Amino acid sequence: MSYEANVRRVTPYVPGEQPKEKNIIKLNTNENPYPPAPGWREIVNTIDEDAFRKYPDPLITDLTHAIAAYHKVDIDKVFVGIGSDDVLATAFLTLFNSEKPVIFPDITYSFYDVWADVFRIPYKTIPLDENFRIKAEDYNIPNGGIVIANPNAPTGILESVDFIEGIIKANPDSAVIVDEAYIDFGGETCLPLIDKYENLLVVRTFSKSRCMAGLRIGYAIGNVKMIKFISDVKFSINSYTLNTPTIALGLASLRDNEYFEECCQRVIATRERAEEQLIKLGFKSTNSYANFLFVSHKEKKAEYIFEELKKRKIYVRYFKKPRIDNYLRISIGTDDEMEKLVEALKEIV
Amino acid sequence: MSYEANVRRVTPYVPGEQPKEKNIIKLNTNENPYPPAPGWREIVNTIDEDAFRKYPDPLITDLTHAIAAYHKVDIDKVFVGIGSDDVLATAFLTLFNSEKPVIFPDITYSFYDVWADVFRIPYKTIPLDENFRIKAEDYNIPNGGIVIANPNAPTGILESVDFIEGIIKANPDSAVIVDEAYIDFGGETCLPLIDKYENLLVVRTFSKSRCMAGLRIGYAIGNVKMIKFISDVKFSINSYTLNTPTIALGLASLRDNEYFEECCQRVIATRERAEEQLIKLGFKSTNSYANFLFVSHKEKKAEYIFEELKKRKIYVRYFKKPRIDNYLRISIGTDDEMEKLVEALKEIV
Repeated sequence: MSYEANVRRVTPYVPGEQPKEKNIIKLNTNENPYPPAPGWREIVNTIDEDAFRKYPDPLITDLTHAIAAYHKVDIDKVFVGIGSDDVLATAFLTLFNSEKPVIFPDITYSFYDVWADVFRIPYKTIPLDENFRIKAEDYNIPNGGIVIANPNAPTGILESVDFIEGIIKANPDSAVIVDEAYIDFGGETCLPLIDKYENLLVVRTFSKSRCMAGLRIGYAIGNVKMIKFISDVKFSINSYTLNTPTIALGLASLRDNEYFEECCQRVIATRERAEEQLIKLGFKSTNSYANFLFVSHKEKKAEYIFEELKKRKIYVRYFKKPRIDNYLRISIGTDDEMEKLVEALKEIV
Repeated sequence: MSYEANVRRVTPYVPGEQPKEKNIIKLNTNENPYPPAPGWREIVNTIDEDAFRKYPDPLITDLTHAIAAYHKVDIDKVFVGIGSDDVLATAFLTLFNSEKPVIFPDITYSFYDVWADVFRIPYKTIPLDENFRIKAEDYNIPNGGIVIANPNAPTGILESVDFIEGIIKANPDSAVIVDEAYIDFGGETCLPLIDKYENLLVVRTFSKSRCMAGLRIGYAIGNVKMIKFISDVKFSINSYTLNTPTIALGLASLRDNEYFEECCQRVIATRERAEEQLIKLGFKSTNSYANFLFVSHKEKKAEYIFEELKKRKIYVRYFKKPRIDNYLRISIGTDDEMEKLVEALKEIV
């Protein structure tokens, strides 16, 4: 015997590579190619010693207010955490406390089953159809909760608000988490439904559309009672999550809506252009509404292309997983980066 | 029925008040009265746009290296998290995965039972003796893990390394977490024991002695295998915890050891002086080795003193809990702040 008998053993999530090399084209972790709204610089200059010495505001008041104002919801409908991963993990722990399995698509954000495992939440994956679409009727089964990424990752496929509403409506006894990490790149949000369905939680992040992956800010919006449940669990784990500089810096993004919208439009425009070029090279592509493309080549294997790109210092994401092991997920970089990608692919395929 | 049937309900930890008023004397949350090592300013000026745009280093490499170098341990014996609360919560989840109760003193850091509750870990509190000392023999019972704060909070009482070693040695089948949040204010660390006992984890924080409560940095040191177990769980919850600016700013503290030691010495000196003055006013005081005093007055009730101090804009901590409801925990401020406290107490008692 040893203390090891009591250890919770898990297979951890493996994040995308963060290569330390310089001069690479990094299209593997869905970061935004553009810098965050320039207001951050001014905010950095206002950081003073008290921002370090004293505990941060445990209620993250200023940032919560700003997010609530941006979405025109009451502040007690907003929960803020350390990236949407922290928000989702806390929501899983809070809302999926059932003996019945939580259900989600077989192809989706690869953290969902990891959280279920670590928190001992039973789960069951529901196969997407052959076009990677959700079949709504499959969600009419007894379950302990539902989580849907919309647009989905890594496919980028968007379902309509009406479609998602059907699932929420059919499952009044389950919390339904809609993970909208990528919604700002052309999708329509389910946020208007939060006042209609008490079982809905919508999750967002600053990492993609707000160009702030390095800051780790995510949030959820839901009805007051649900947000209170999640917040109680958060306060049972770590009272002070976002630190003082982070709270201040997050505000910079929300203050500059023009920059934000311009930035999203640029990513969308580049995505459409790049997709066209890839199709010309013999790729088929899902109709992605995210800041990445999900593509498969008619002749060359995805793994081969992945390795060849890497040799050329272009990093994309390859998942060696059933059903998607011949696809590549390619984050949308700048036009220049995507041009270099296309040139490299011309050589490879 | 509703989704609420599946909700994990908890009574959250309530952190000390963070009053928004200006001109108060804040001795209620054990923050350091001094600013962090001045090197932070230079580091703030080096923050660039990429620090925001790209995901942070999930391995927190630079800061982990610096902590390992400071303690002269291998880097794979160090785990870094969002304050020691995050580190402790993750360690609880990882190491205390047993049907047998985790044991800890009845009077100690009030987060331990909260974590046990939220993670459904059975636990049992072991009464301290009438002088708030641990009785080692009480820990010779079947258990699923042990956690000991040394110095203890809110009493400030320090146990010797030999004493703690006895408990670790007597419990080879249990992980023993020694929470050394306050060790830098005059205590002797259990760190040298980590190579001797595979079941020991020592937890530290930047919030107290490093004047960085606002940044949220904590860490644990243990053997390579134990650190890997904890790290696997962390990577199953949130791959990217500390953000890029925080990692850089944490380094500033470790680079200036002279400042660090001077700062700890100042807090210790003020603690000794303040304690003497309080004793003259009729208080009895535990022999605190932390950055706070734990005191009780011969005649006046603690709750009354607490309220009276608040009227004078001096915030201290009062716990309305069995056995300690006639005590106050008073964080060590600057000499000037402690002088004002003593003046106020002269009026009150």
